[in-house]
Amino acid sequence: MKIGNKSYRTIWFEKNVVKIIDQTKLPHKFIIKDLKTVKDAINAIKTMEVRGAPLIGATAAYGLVLSIIEKNDLSFLKKSSEDLIASRPTAINLKWAVDRMMDKLSGVNDKDILKIALDTAKTVVEEDVGFCKSIGLNGLKIIEEISNKKKDVVNILTHCNAGWLATIEWGTATSPIYHAHQKGIKVHVWVDETRPRNQGANLTSYELNEEGIPNTVITDNAGGILMQRGQVDMCIVGTDRTLSNGDVCNKIGTYLKALAAKDNSIPFYVALPSSTIDWNIKDHNQIPIEERNSDELSFVEGVDEDNKIKKIRIYPEKSKAMNLAFDVTPAKYVTGLITEKGVCEASEKGLKGLFK
Amino acid sequence: MKIGNKSYRTIWFEKNVVKIIDQTKLPHKFIIKDLKTVKDAINAIKTMEVRGAPLIGATAAYGLVLSIIEKNDLSFLKKSSEDLIASRPTAINLKWAVDRMMDKLSGVNDKDILKIALDTAKTVVEEDVGFCKSIGLNGLKIIEEISNKKKDVVNILTHCNAGWLATIEWGTATSPIYHAHQKGIKVHVWVDETRPRNQGANLTSYELNEEGIPNTVITDNAGGILMQRGQVDMCIVGTDRTLSNGDVCNKIGTYLKALAAKDNSIPFYVALPSSTIDWNIKDHNQIPIEERNSDELSFVEGVDEDNKIKKIRIYPEKSKAMNLAFDVTPAKYVTGLITEKGVCEASEKGLKGLFK
Repeated sequence: MKIGNKSYRTIWFEKNVVKIIDQTKLPHKFIIKDLKTVKDAINAIKTMEVRGAPLIGATAAYGLVLSIIEKNDLSFLKKSSEDLIASRPTAINLKWAVDRMMDKLSGVNDKDILKIALDTAKTVVEEDVGFCKSIGLNGLKIIEEISNKKKDVVNILTHCNAGWLATIEWGTATSPIYHAHQKGIKVHVWVDETRPRNQGANLTSYELNEEGIPNTVITDNAGGILMQRGQVDMCIVGTDRTLSNGDVCNKIGTYLKALAAKDNSIPFYVALPSSTIDWNIKDHNQIPIEERNSDELSFVEGVDEDNKIKKIRIYPEKSKAMNLAFDVTPAKYVTGLITEKGVCEASEKGLKGLFK
Repeated sequence: MKIGNKSYRTIWFEKNVVKIIDQTKLPHKFIIKDLKTVKDAINAIKTMEVRGAPLIGATAAYGLVLSIIEKNDLSFLKKSSEDLIASRPTAINLKWAVDRMMDKLSGVNDKDILKIALDTAKTVVEEDVGFCKSIGLNGLKIIEEISNKKKDVVNILTHCNAGWLATIEWGTATSPIYHAHQKGIKVHVWVDETRPRNQGANLTSYELNEEGIPNTVITDNAGGILMQRGQVDMCIVGTDRTLSNGDVCNKIGTYLKALAAKDNSIPFYVALPSSTIDWNIKDHNQIPIEERNSDELSFVEGVDEDNKIKKIRIYPEKSKAMNLAFDVTPAKYVTGLITEKGVCEASEKGLKGLFK
């Protein structure tokens, strides 16, 4: 996808080094960073230089490649895989990507292991690109239908960044939007800023700007009144983990938008590659909800009047803060799941109809 | 109420000057500011140096006193009253306070007008203090009941600042909390940071800290999952305008919390002095919803590492933003209205039972 009219992916492998776009510096600086060791990869995931379930998965897969380049040793590889899985607890396809790699590498001899690891990592990446494209084409039909009916700009609300920056290309929630835009359908996106890390404002609005798609940043508080006033035609969000019953674990605040959409009879869709489906957990109370450092709330980064990146404290010094990263949207508030295989009801029946 | 162990009100009159606490500088700096002209008063309201429906009303009342001191002239007074009303369109008791002053001043001769204006403004102020105290005593009973049943800390979620800093003393939403705390009931407050201006973090958490009440700042996105997990026992918020049918117009994002409270069977109360009731508007679509400058979203103020106040841009430079200040919570999501005359159902019947 485009940044300043040049095409990029979020991650690529070049001369034994993994290249990523450092997403903690966006939108203010565009910096390509080298990951040379598995520790670099773990660190990139932990500090959210890479984020978004599919991109985290791809980084973990490449992380294992780096581990083999570093030290072709089975116990080191095993330790690397465990550390990678532990680097962020909520994203399901982090574990999915690591398990898949380890599965392919089990019993492989030392000579072949690097090639097989690299091929598998590339397959993980290419599959994700394909999945995101299919999600886009499947979601496009929904936008098209609204556009045909409304005969005016389709207003789509999204939360956080389930854009191409969260994947390799296209994105999940944004893919239908990009496909609609390419087809000439007029869309406008309401972008929740998505506190505390502002990935909506910093990443989604940024990538939509670069692709020339009209968008407006709003506070996370604003979606409700926009829906009450008929200024939202549909919502599309991503997911970090989708339960087999259709419950969706996504960036904190998603649940509140789903409630408002329901209250105003606005369709609320979740876009996902099947790799985010967790077939094992039946009850969302079993999902580990990551609690991150509360400094992410009380400090904010931006640019000062000299265009220098600056971090400031915005809370009273004495105040305590709490930083939960995800919430759960019960299936009953989800109009449909947009997957690479088609759109289905948010339910076990719906998901099994497509995937089992 | 206390700031650094000294007692203050938010506004007072001293030697022909109105004194306010400049709330745009809180929590980082505590600055007392002089308002010497009606223009100063209008400016203080517009720039939100004073904010909160009751405090805006008091400032407007004192603004008319300043207008008379400045120029004892009827047409100047009339113009002042119009400019004051126009300074913030949503708050109902801005108009209420101005109308009340103008009513008292109509037909009064030049010699007596200043004294009558000052007396009326002081009555407006003292009445508000009394109202807020009664709201506290009425709301206290609800907290007490939960405390008796739970036999553990009562977790209360609030949005924005309907604290004493929004009034003269006690606050509206915080008054029951202060009264409970003074009675020895254990409370803990979840404070929504309340983007874009962060009045929750900057003012509510600040004033609760100063009064020694345990509180935790959370993003506006977080209330949903806390409610899902049983970590919220009740919500109390304020209101800028309460319709006679019980619909509540309050700081943007209130509606989303009310939806989450309903979905998780958590009581959602709105605390208000009767001066915020709008008996005329029956349909919330008729309420003018103030749209403020979008720079309030894209720029954030805080303190840097040298403890200097600094403003930084947090959005991409190309991004457009939209800044609606209020939303409407339909009466059906409000468990009850806590007023100075008692607690009632959020309905015309409920309100008329107490006030007509």
